[in-house]
Amino acid sequence: MASSVKNAVGAVVESKECYLSAYAVKGVPTSDHLKFRTVSLPVAADSIPDGHVAVELRLVSVDPYVRTRMTGRKDGLYFPPFELSEVITAFGIGRVISSRNDKYAEGDIVMNPLFPVAEYCVVPLDFLKKVDTGSSSIALPEYLSCFGVPGFTAWLGIEVLGDPKPGSNVFISAAAGGVGMYAGQLAKLKGCRVIGSTGSDEKVKLIKEEFGYDDGFNYNKETDFDAALSKYFPDGIDLYFDNVGGKMLEAVLNHINPHARISLCGMISQYNTVWTDRDGVRNLLNMVGKEVRMEGFLVGSYLHRFNDFVNDMENYLKQGKIKSKHKIYHGIESFVESLGSLFSSSNTGKVIVKV
Amino acid sequence: MASSVKNAVGAVVESKECYLSAYAVKGVPTSDHLKFRTVSLPVAADSIPDGHVAVELRLVSVDPYVRTRMTGRKDGLYFPPFELSEVITAFGIGRVISSRNDKYAEGDIVMNPLFPVAEYCVVPLDFLKKVDTGSSSIALPEYLSCFGVPGFTAWLGIEVLGDPKPGSNVFISAAAGGVGMYAGQLAKLKGCRVIGSTGSDEKVKLIKEEFGYDDGFNYNKETDFDAALSKYFPDGIDLYFDNVGGKMLEAVLNHINPHARISLCGMISQYNTVWTDRDGVRNLLNMVGKEVRMEGFLVGSYLHRFNDFVNDMENYLKQGKIKSKHKIYHGIESFVESLGSLFSSSNTGKVIVKV
Repeated sequence: MASSVKNAVGAVVESKECYLSAYAVKGVPTSDHLKFRTVSLPVAADSIPDGHVAVELRLVSVDPYVRTRMTGRKDGLYFPPFELSEVITAFGIGRVISSRNDKYAEGDIVMNPLFPVAEYCVVPLDFLKKVDTGSSSIALPEYLSCFGVPGFTAWLGIEVLGDPKPGSNVFISAAAGGVGMYAGQLAKLKGCRVIGSTGSDEKVKLIKEEFGYDDGFNYNKETDFDAALSKYFPDGIDLYFDNVGGKMLEAVLNHINPHARISLCGMISQYNTVWTDRDGVRNLLNMVGKEVRMEGFLVGSYLHRFNDFVNDMENYLKQGKIKSKHKIYHGIESFVESLGSLFSSSNTGKVIVKV
Repeated sequence: MASSVKNAVGAVVESKECYLSAYAVKGVPTSDHLKFRTVSLPVAADSIPDGHVAVELRLVSVDPYVRTRMTGRKDGLYFPPFELSEVITAFGIGRVISSRNDKYAEGDIVMNPLFPVAEYCVVPLDFLKKVDTGSSSIALPEYLSCFGVPGFTAWLGIEVLGDPKPGSNVFISAAAGGVGMYAGQLAKLKGCRVIGSTGSDEKVKLIKEEFGYDDGFNYNKETDFDAALSKYFPDGIDLYFDNVGGKMLEAVLNHINPHARISLCGMISQYNTVWTDRDGVRNLLNMVGKEVRMEGFLVGSYLHRFNDFVNDMENYLKQGKIKSKHKIYHGIESFVESLGSLFSSSNTGKVIVKV
């Protein structure tokens, strides 16, 4: 991180920022696609636009959906694709170093779903939200995980779309990931039987011992998903929280119960190929015979439920019923490696870059 | 049809019935898979079991789902597969010729979703329903279409699952078929813009002129579905009533609007192949980005809504707002040809066998 900056008139900081240098159509994005440049950024209050703040970034959330914006194509994206040479944006937390708005002052800690992946930035207030660090014992990374997008996503997929009942058979893919770890714990709190799939034996151990899953399997080892689901779901699947799509989704549809729900959160197994090369799901007909409801969702459409979510989560957290795990990468330039790691089974919990 | 039978003590009728002689794993079922045999059936009241009726079949509904029961496999079926040499069952209407229950008398007209495909039968009362032909001007075939499974299916997919709004862009595949013709008309009555796909220019003309569709296309001619949907849905699709699945469903997902609904009624394009050979849908990821809800349904789960449906439908019918079309085949042995015809683009409206 660059050294601390006095908010003096005329202050300028050197800021390293990450930009798209080439479209990543296929495969895992690397330093061939994401490069860094250093810009001189005027950050003094009198040199930033009205209604803006200058922010020193602290934490950057590394989320799979960001990868879908790097293809230059508009196929099934949450946000428009990044343009070449455009700075990458991500959910983040930072400290205000100067402000041209009365609501924000130097020293405020702020969140923003669209912070530039950079050491410093000057941003408008549109999506900014103050983090009340004073009255809370919540550690800063929790704001990007438990109370952030992963926690809210998990809560929506389970509580709002999933309609779980005590005893329901629930399956979570990417079960040890930023979203999966909360989804599994929330389903357990509803009295469900919860099984997870994840990418290593170590992580299978973790979801059982740390996150309370009833069982789990390593999809890199039990590669016949159909056989694995037969084994772990002798009574079929009532709710599938899908983080991966593709072959796993297809296998699930062969074990799905009548009136089951499938919450589509994302499909990480499919992000590194163009859509025409993606795994086709051939058994959607099962959705008719079993009257399955499958629904995609984005957190942005459920902001009216955010307070319900925070209340639920705080309640659980106070009772020690929700645990988190973070994988921290260090330095803004680790963003490239940390993003790639999302596709490699190598992480556990929420991936965060400490700037 | 066999000649009328006196319900005399000891009466026996010769009845031709259709049975499965070989599993139809792939392709359109033919007389290689469906054969007929004549059985001698005691139909006198004193020779049938208590709580049963003997019925002379009049009309047999020919529905695509019946084909999915002929594979010997249990993949995504509505009902268990037919066993070899088992008599095929189908929705039908017949006349009671003798009864061992006080509620039914000779001459009653009855419906049953599980009538044997036969000239005569002896059945329990479980699924039997009396048709009140006295107080109604409704023609008998309408009970198998408008007020039967196709009408109810269309109503559920549009009104209950589809959530159409005035101005919504609605797409119906198999638009001139038994279900499609009602789905399109119901969506029009909700003030939607409705486009249909069907298998011939003649049927495109029909859905526009007879059923009030705003437009339609012949999928055998406009074979690039993606291009066709671009042309007919410049503002995207808000509701898709899917009767076909496969490539058309995939194309729809490339034109789907945020928060769209997809009602999965059946997938006729996929019934003649084993599931591993079916067309995979590769762009389900679009369901996440567009927050699409896709839901399969069976009429049997919505019987609590049947009266609402009948009220709606009767109301529309009295105002002349719903039209029907039937394709009638003659003689029980035409069941094989009529079933095959469902997969050939050759029919319009509800296919019925007049026994």
